[in-house]
Amino acid sequence: MLYLGEMPGFSALLTVGEAKARFARVYTPRPRGTEHVALDEAFGRVLAADVLAPEDLPPFDRSTVDGYAVRAEDTRGATPEAPAEVRLVGEVLMGEPASCRVGPGEAARIATGGMLPEGADAVVMLEDADVRGGAVAVRRPVRPGDNVIRRAEDISRGEVAVRQGTRLRPQEVGLLAALGAVRVEVFLRPRVAVVATGDEVVPPDRVPGPGQVRDVNTYALGALVRQAGGVPRSLGIVEDSPERLLQVLAEARAAADLVLVSGGSSVGSRDAVAHAVNALGKPGVVVHGVSIKPGKPTILAVAEGTPIVGLPGHPVSGMVIFDVFVRDLLRGLSGERPRRGFGQTVRARLDRAVASAGVREDHIRVALEERAGTLWAIPIVGKSGVITTMTRADGVVVVPQGQDRVEEGAEVEVRLFDA
Amino acid sequence: MLYLGEMPGFSALLTVGEAKARFARVYTPRPRGTEHVALDEAFGRVLAADVLAPEDLPPFDRSTVDGYAVRAEDTRGATPEAPAEVRLVGEVLMGEPASCRVGPGEAARIATGGMLPEGADAVVMLEDADVRGGAVAVRRPVRPGDNVIRRAEDISRGEVAVRQGTRLRPQEVGLLAALGAVRVEVFLRPRVAVVATGDEVVPPDRVPGPGQVRDVNTYALGALVRQAGGVPRSLGIVEDSPERLLQVLAEARAAADLVLVSGGSSVGSRDAVAHAVNALGKPGVVVHGVSIKPGKPTILAVAEGTPIVGLPGHPVSGMVIFDVFVRDLLRGLSGERPRRGFGQTVRARLDRAVASAGVREDHIRVALEERAGTLWAIPIVGKSGVITTMTRADGVVVVPQGQDRVEEGAEVEVRLFDA
Repeated sequence: MLYLGEMPGFSALLTVGEAKARFARVYTPRPRGTEHVALDEAFGRVLAADVLAPEDLPPFDRSTVDGYAVRAEDTRGATPEAPAEVRLVGEVLMGEPASCRVGPGEAARIATGGMLPEGADAVVMLEDADVRGGAVAVRRPVRPGDNVIRRAEDISRGEVAVRQGTRLRPQEVGLLAALGAVRVEVFLRPRVAVVATGDEVVPPDRVPGPGQVRDVNTYALGALVRQAGGVPRSLGIVEDSPERLLQVLAEARAAADLVLVSGGSSVGSRDAVAHAVNALGKPGVVVHGVSIKPGKPTILAVAEGTPIVGLPGHPVSGMVIFDVFVRDLLRGLSGERPRRGFGQTVRARLDRAVASAGVREDHIRVALEERAGTLWAIPIVGKSGVITTMTRADGVVVVPQGQDRVEEGAEVEVRLFDA
Repeated sequence: MLYLGEMPGFSALLTVGEAKARFARVYTPRPRGTEHVALDEAFGRVLAADVLAPEDLPPFDRSTVDGYAVRAEDTRGATPEAPAEVRLVGEVLMGEPASCRVGPGEAARIATGGMLPEGADAVVMLEDADVRGGAVAVRRPVRPGDNVIRRAEDISRGEVAVRQGTRLRPQEVGLLAALGAVRVEVFLRPRVAVVATGDEVVPPDRVPGPGQVRDVNTYALGALVRQAGGVPRSLGIVEDSPERLLQVLAEARAAADLVLVSGGSSVGSRDAVAHAVNALGKPGVVVHGVSIKPGKPTILAVAEGTPIVGLPGHPVSGMVIFDVFVRDLLRGLSGERPRRGFGQTVRARLDRAVASAGVREDHIRVALEERAGTLWAIPIVGKSGVITTMTRADGVVVVPQGQDRVEEGAEVEVRLFDA
């Protein structure tokens, strides 16, 4: 049995950046295909093709207020003392073309959203006019276009309304409805196989015997996959047998766009994952071991076009490695354009000094607390086998490789966990 | 037909805060009930009861490294030049109780996650020891507890592991797995009926005729409800008929925990919603009209215990009012504890001055852009009927009532839209 420190080439660990770059040279994630879904199922999906506006939006000039459609020039110079008088010639009914035409010196009653009648170029607000019989006294002038949304002011026919690669928010869903896009083409959700390994790992419905622990990774990674828009599929817990592991990974590779193997914490299973992945197909293991804490025994691999990530068995390490390496893979497999990430970080002051080994990029979990208007990041002390360090945390502070200490009171950037 | 400005009491608009306070006096949202779900379906759901740890976690002392379990005192003073010698008496197998006992001067091989054998109180890392035959030369001392997660270090039997009212993130799902909580009690998702009104509104699969527009609100509000963890149900578009509206609202109230009625933009439908709600049950309309821009014609109502919110017909106004009033209602109906909201806002500099009417709280949509390390908020100019003002925006800047201008370069707080 080989121990981690004894594995050839393992001691020269790649930095996070080097590991990402090496992996990117052999593998680029792309969506597997597309499907059409009804618009009311499209929220959160990623658009697979640009949607062009098939017509002007709005398709006609609309009033934005309740009032009177007029020719603006007829209101020139109007004041409360010397109102401009126009003659009421009709009313615009909602959902119908205006039946009247507004000529010089004329006005038509119109409600918010109503179609501007021919001849009118502005709308006087209700509160700026007085009606006496058939006469409207306008107390305040309007300019052409006032209180009107022009035809095509929202979007013009043929313009790109929503771009390929956009993860649809409620507002994009609304815009697509406005354009009549009742079915949209979206990328297929990535299928992610989740395999747990380790002789000490038992399913959560079993009471662990001495030396055994329950399978956390299948559940935590499954939820992270869902959160990132993928579809997780658990292939269960594989005991530390090379043949059985190879068999399950082959099954996973065939049925999934991405395979996540959480290592048992035992050396044997870590070793077995690398060997099985290499036996599975070319190029096999690309990165084995990364200079990050927690998460050193990470494996990045590709077998016949399918990416395989070996995550550490400690649940906290697995979640950190998911954030650092897997999230971007899933984004690529989803076809989503890179997000700009506003609001995914906050700046805070470190509540107490933290020491870092300095030799690895250190991911420190923190809880946030606001005191007297200042946001404080409180380091959650605990080993990466301690799951509650994650449940008590709001995010992570990354201490770069080479830095061995962050002082109390220092300003730090906290990468927030998704809610 | 009454126009908005003519409605009794309507001109004295409540501020947003007053409207919320008045509504809170007559209605408190609470979840309808609970259900049990499998843990792998529990991500994103809200826990309905505290989950206590049924046992210590971890249930035994575990090694956090690969190495040798020892009695710390046996390594005192060890250096590379004068290593402490201990005798290898066995190996801990993963998933099994340690078969050996570590006495004074003894050590047992152990892997990460292995159960500490009786007698041992620390683990020497592999790289800090040399093995020659049955002897282990320890080059660096350890203290009791070094490289060990103690029994119950994560959580003790009987402690609250996850609190009622927590929306479960991946880490909480993982912790629940670790505790064997394979089924959990969660609050029922709130059922939200969505009703669109307005004679000018046609379903998105229809080509609008002159004066007509497609139904945006059913889709945008439906997606917002999903995003907030609710289950939307569309009851379609109701023409401006008081009888039909009352009938649909009665149906909605009977089948939902919250009713959203998006007003057609026409005055008639706005009026009709208030009258129908009052006919539906007590206390009826509680707030009619709020000093906010966009979103003035908002209705907050309760009929026989069911909250009903009348949202403006303009899609942008509807989305703003959802954020301001509906989101909190849905949180309460979901049973979720108030979130602390880190990362839901960012500070930025205003790219150009904005004028506000000053008489209403003004919600200005902005796009964010980073230039030379500074985050700029660029106001998206456009009327609230222009949907692309939302799709081009990253968030909203709120200008308080009474303030009529924000200067170029001013620091503003941007409330970010959920992704």
